[in-house]
Amino acid sequence: MTKYLLLPLLSLTWLSAFAQQPISLSSPNRFIILTVRNTPTGEISYQVRYKNKPVVEPSSLGFTLSKPKVSLTRFSISAVDSSKKDETWKPVWGEVSQVRNHYNELTLNLQDKSGSNIGVRVRFRLFDDGVGFRYEFPQQTALTHFVVADELTQFKLAADHQTFWMPGDYDSNEYLYNKTKLTEVDAITAADKEKDTALKSVIGPNAVQTPLLFKTADGLYISLYEAALLNYPVMHLQLDKKSLTLTSQLVPDAVGNKAYLQTPAQTPWRTLIISDKATDLLASKLILNLNEPSTIADPSWIKPQKFVGMWWEMHIGKATWEKAGGKHGANTQNVKKYIDFAAKYGFDGVLVEGWNVGWEDWFGNWKEEVFDFVTPYPDYNLDSLTAYAQRKGVRIIMHHETSGSVTNYERRMDAAFQFMNKEGITTVKTGYVGRIIPRGEHHDGQWMVNHYQRVTQKAAQYKIMIDSHESAHPTGLHRTYPNWMASEAARGSEFNNAPTLGITPEHTTILPFTRMLGGPMDFTPGLFRFKLNQFDSTRTQRVRTTLAKQLALYITLYSPLQMAADLPENYEKHLDAFQFIRDVPVDWDDTKILAAEPGDYVVVARKTKGADSWFLGAITDENSRDLPLDLSFLEAGKSYEAVIYRDAPNADWETKPEAYVIEKKIVTSKTKLPIHLAKGGGCAIQFVKK
Amino acid sequence: MTKYLLLPLLSLTWLSAFAQQPISLSSPNRFIILTVRNTPTGEISYQVRYKNKPVVEPSSLGFTLSKPKVSLTRFSISAVDSSKKDETWKPVWGEVSQVRNHYNELTLNLQDKSGSNIGVRVRFRLFDDGVGFRYEFPQQTALTHFVVADELTQFKLAADHQTFWMPGDYDSNEYLYNKTKLTEVDAITAADKEKDTALKSVIGPNAVQTPLLFKTADGLYISLYEAALLNYPVMHLQLDKKSLTLTSQLVPDAVGNKAYLQTPAQTPWRTLIISDKATDLLASKLILNLNEPSTIADPSWIKPQKFVGMWWEMHIGKATWEKAGGKHGANTQNVKKYIDFAAKYGFDGVLVEGWNVGWEDWFGNWKEEVFDFVTPYPDYNLDSLTAYAQRKGVRIIMHHETSGSVTNYERRMDAAFQFMNKEGITTVKTGYVGRIIPRGEHHDGQWMVNHYQRVTQKAAQYKIMIDSHESAHPTGLHRTYPNWMASEAARGSEFNNAPTLGITPEHTTILPFTRMLGGPMDFTPGLFRFKLNQFDSTRTQRVRTTLAKQLALYITLYSPLQMAADLPENYEKHLDAFQFIRDVPVDWDDTKILAAEPGDYVVVARKTKGADSWFLGAITDENSRDLPLDLSFLEAGKSYEAVIYRDAPNADWETKPEAYVIEKKIVTSKTKLPIHLAKGGGCAIQFVKK
Repeated sequence: MTKYLLLPLLSLTWLSAFAQQPISLSSPNRFIILTVRNTPTGEISYQVRYKNKPVVEPSSLGFTLSKPKVSLTRFSISAVDSSKKDETWKPVWGEVSQVRNHYNELTLNLQDKSGSNIGVRVRFRLFDDGVGFRYEFPQQTALTHFVVADELTQFKLAADHQTFWMPGDYDSNEYLYNKTKLTEVDAITAADKEKDTALKSVIGPNAVQTPLLFKTADGLYISLYEAALLNYPVMHLQLDKKSLTLTSQLVPDAVGNKAYLQTPAQTPWRTLIISDKATDLLASKLILNLNEPSTIADPSWIKPQKFVGMWWEMHIGKATWEKAGGKHGANTQNVKKYIDFAAKYGFDGVLVEGWNVGWEDWFGNWKEEVFDFVTPYPDYNLDSLTAYAQRKGVRIIMHHETSGSVTNYERRMDAAFQFMNKEGITTVKTGYVGRIIPRGEHHDGQWMVNHYQRVTQKAAQYKIMIDSHESAHPTGLHRTYPNWMASEAARGSEFNNAPTLGITPEHTTILPFTRMLGGPMDFTPGLFRFKLNQFDSTRTQRVRTTLAKQLALYITLYSPLQMAADLPENYEKHLDAFQFIRDVPVDWDDTKILAAEPGDYVVVARKTKGADSWFLGAITDENSRDLPLDLSFLEAGKSYEAVIYRDAPNADWETKPEAYVIEKKIVTSKTKLPIHLAKGGGCAIQFVKK
Repeated sequence: MTKYLLLPLLSLTWLSAFAQQPISLSSPNRFIILTVRNTPTGEISYQVRYKNKPVVEPSSLGFTLSKPKVSLTRFSISAVDSSKKDETWKPVWGEVSQVRNHYNELTLNLQDKSGSNIGVRVRFRLFDDGVGFRYEFPQQTALTHFVVADELTQFKLAADHQTFWMPGDYDSNEYLYNKTKLTEVDAITAADKEKDTALKSVIGPNAVQTPLLFKTADGLYISLYEAALLNYPVMHLQLDKKSLTLTSQLVPDAVGNKAYLQTPAQTPWRTLIISDKATDLLASKLILNLNEPSTIADPSWIKPQKFVGMWWEMHIGKATWEKAGGKHGANTQNVKKYIDFAAKYGFDGVLVEGWNVGWEDWFGNWKEEVFDFVTPYPDYNLDSLTAYAQRKGVRIIMHHETSGSVTNYERRMDAAFQFMNKEGITTVKTGYVGRIIPRGEHHDGQWMVNHYQRVTQKAAQYKIMIDSHESAHPTGLHRTYPNWMASEAARGSEFNNAPTLGITPEHTTILPFTRMLGGPMDFTPGLFRFKLNQFDSTRTQRVRTTLAKQLALYITLYSPLQMAADLPENYEKHLDAFQFIRDVPVDWDDTKILAAEPGDYVVVARKTKGADSWFLGAITDENSRDLPLDLSFLEAGKSYEAVIYRDAPNADWETKPEAYVIEKKIVTSKTKLPIHLAKGGGCAIQFVKK
């Protein structure tokens, strides 16, 4: 193996002499090697290898700007810096109580050779588990305000990898994942199959979304994504099948521009998480590490929560969001029942959707003035309910559905948050269903990315926690803004009720390898009734998991906001299994990924924040499987009571989803505990130190 | 002359029998006749004649909708109603203390024949001085939310009239008027000549703006415009030169749609003011009458005002808006001088532009976060100045330049108005210089029209008066929202400082026949120094009027907000003439248009609100002229002291603009007082009852 150096600071003199020499940098563990080259014609390419296997073949960097009109593709290198960092930081909440941030850094100062005199910096960070790089536009005379026409970042792959992908789409990330060879990507056909997505803006046949996951023939797992998406559009990717090259496809605004920036500025980090172990990919903190530290000095008001709510009963036809029609769910009496239920079983919150005037024509009309966020329906006595909830130690969770009319929401946001403060409501679920207003903008464009940040920052001023739905994919910003607790930004449990494709058993085994790398998801697990014809016998939709798998999802899909999504009456039929949902925490001191394979299975153990108990979740796809379980994560020499919620021997998502067994065993760190997962099944275990 | 009937209520039976019969309606004075026809193929045409002369030849009505996708061009008439009204109402402020609203009305209920089942109503109102009509979309099963692709309203003219026009433009109305035959319209060439307009979005060679003015060979003056522009884009016009037909050209949004509506809905009124006397056109209250009554129950806080301000000195290079550069105008000491000046000479307000952080890069970058509207520059002590002004009986006028970033302004508007309330500031000048954000929207589109309404309504909640600049053309909404005191929405006095075309001497003789028909303009007259090289000897710009004309503009261009725009030091050189500006009111009991010809001259007399004094303004274009002056508007049998501010015999805008004479005469209603106006000159007279 060649010896790779961590470069010392290089002098310009050195550079002019060796300008065409490749510049290399390794990760701290030397597994990953980055090589940057500057061709005689000025192109800058970067290359990434992992344990001497190709990850990214030499790929180019650059931009076209529409103002000033210039192509930034040919550069000279005016300076090269390198540095390293090794620090540990503590998140406000999360999967672990501390995170190590350990990387070597290479910074290239590039000078445009086309005559614009513009300087661009590219900063690479090499972690033991991957690479991040971003462009920086320093303050300079040659560039102040500028408009990005296209980012030209390329990712040239070494082979036609197995790829987990979603169609590139400017407005929706609520797709199932497709698993094909890279050259078999067919985004249009895949998107056409998706009949249940409210709004699609598919980019083209060869466009895919990030995060994108590859499994290579030589045993690597590679996630291609981005971190710290601020003041910039989402990066989708355009695939050239011939060259196996993916090129950055930024989301345009209403007039076709991509980003309006002012120096000093930088792009989000373009990230590659790389490992030869699938479990290490899931354990990566690379995305979080590439985000800035928390901006909230006193986060004591930020509380991970479990909640129930007035929500699923609208999906399955028991009630409606709108008042017209006589089945209005969010009426005082009905919500009181949820508050009683939450109080009885120890939940923190009760989400109430459909509480406010406007639902009668909220969707599909690109209508600007829909909701005002402060006017309850007349049959919903919010004042009395917040007081009632408070007496019972429960908080109502607010719902701000914008119907995509974001200009309207932004005008009313202060009043809406003041109203929440007055009512003592500390958490809001936001929603962006439908086409965006400002018309012509997209959910994933720079303007909306800035909106999500504005909401989060303003909410923090009011000490309000955010759970955003239909927002852009998460990129680790919960480090910087820990009151942005969770987002949807993927196909969540509600799609169990979608008539066409629903949620496949494998979907939840792919999410941790893709969407969840960016941050917590409000997936809303916990469905205990699997045929969804409870209130409408004509419905054929069903939940394609076993009950035990629903429990395991509380562990495998991390979120500091977890809903118990089903109806109280469905939980009351299985109070023994429901006990797991009551017991499972939403904040952790430690996390171990015990086993994982994308699209097949995931096994995760987590240690309760500030306590000596562990919880474990194991899920499988449509195949049943037996997995060995090594309990060496438990404290050595101690014994634990394991409360095991597992699929019954005859359980099967199709024929016997409710068949589960609860058993207790005494175990130690040395116990071997093989587990059996049914088709579409799972297993959830609580370990309490004796 | 044929006898025209005011139709009684017609029965459907009658209609089916006589469906192809023309339906006619006359104005109360019978000068104007409207004839509506329904052709066998379903087209609806309307025709307008004045004293048996053609005004509008049979012209079609209709729409295309993009959602639902339907052409509404062929109709059956399902009902016809007629009615009349004669009422008198009192404006909160204005040119007259009461307005007569007298019209005959015809309403056609139309049923789409293309199969959509959509019903549309067209309502015509015939006044003695013109016609208004609008489309109404009643609440109905066949149409709820809908999107207007195009309005197809046509205005077919009878001959190739002399036309006063501006290039059709989605973002600017700050053009000079062109005077050509209709078939000689060449909007691109005209727009290309205009080098000094910050932002142009010219529609095409044959597109012109409303208000559009015609003078016909047979002696008619016709103004084609619109009234009550709410929740709908501005109407420009596309000209077909062959058929002499103008067709409505609505301003598109970012994705090309024109308007998003929900039944019940209606368009603005399409208006024709018609007279064979130019003076009657100027006296018309048709536009106001087609607007709804005031929505402000207690308007006692709304006060017409005269003001001076920190503004012109930036235009002419004495100071800057921005702090960087060392010539920051809005510093505490400088503004104090303006407050002292205002207090000394009896002005109500002091406008201060450039007071707040952000001017360093406010323009030209389509930047969203420019101003926050609450942060003064550090050298501007707003708290001390508002207190200082208050002690002197003067109020600072706030300035909210948005730089076109309206999303930013809307987010911050509450905080900005709360800040004004805290500082005791009751009037704000808003500004929209530059490309609009939401990007892709235009100053004249539905979204911005709604914005102007939102600002006005929110301002009213805070008891704040609005003076909007770079807003859409006014359409009489100051009747409904009397706190929307004035707008710019045309080429104002600031263009005297524009290097290329400036303001021609005739411009102010056209404005009353066009832009001013819609409402008050903050023209900012009162310039007393004509060569604008006071602070920069290289400047060749100059004001192309005499000093006496500057005085007369306070009368001929009505506004309840009038600025004395020049620098205090320039006024102090002509305190005798300045006395007129001090004396002239901004609210009136009565107005008489004594003489007028578009592009040539305007003579107006106004009676002070609540007092026995009259004021008169007379202006001319580039030609000197002598006009007889009939004082019969004065109270008979009483004598008045006339203080006459007139051009000196040798006055001339080019050679001797400052040459004026002030003289006093005793006059009565029988006095004949011929007046001489110099080239680019004017005359201002105050009549005080003895």
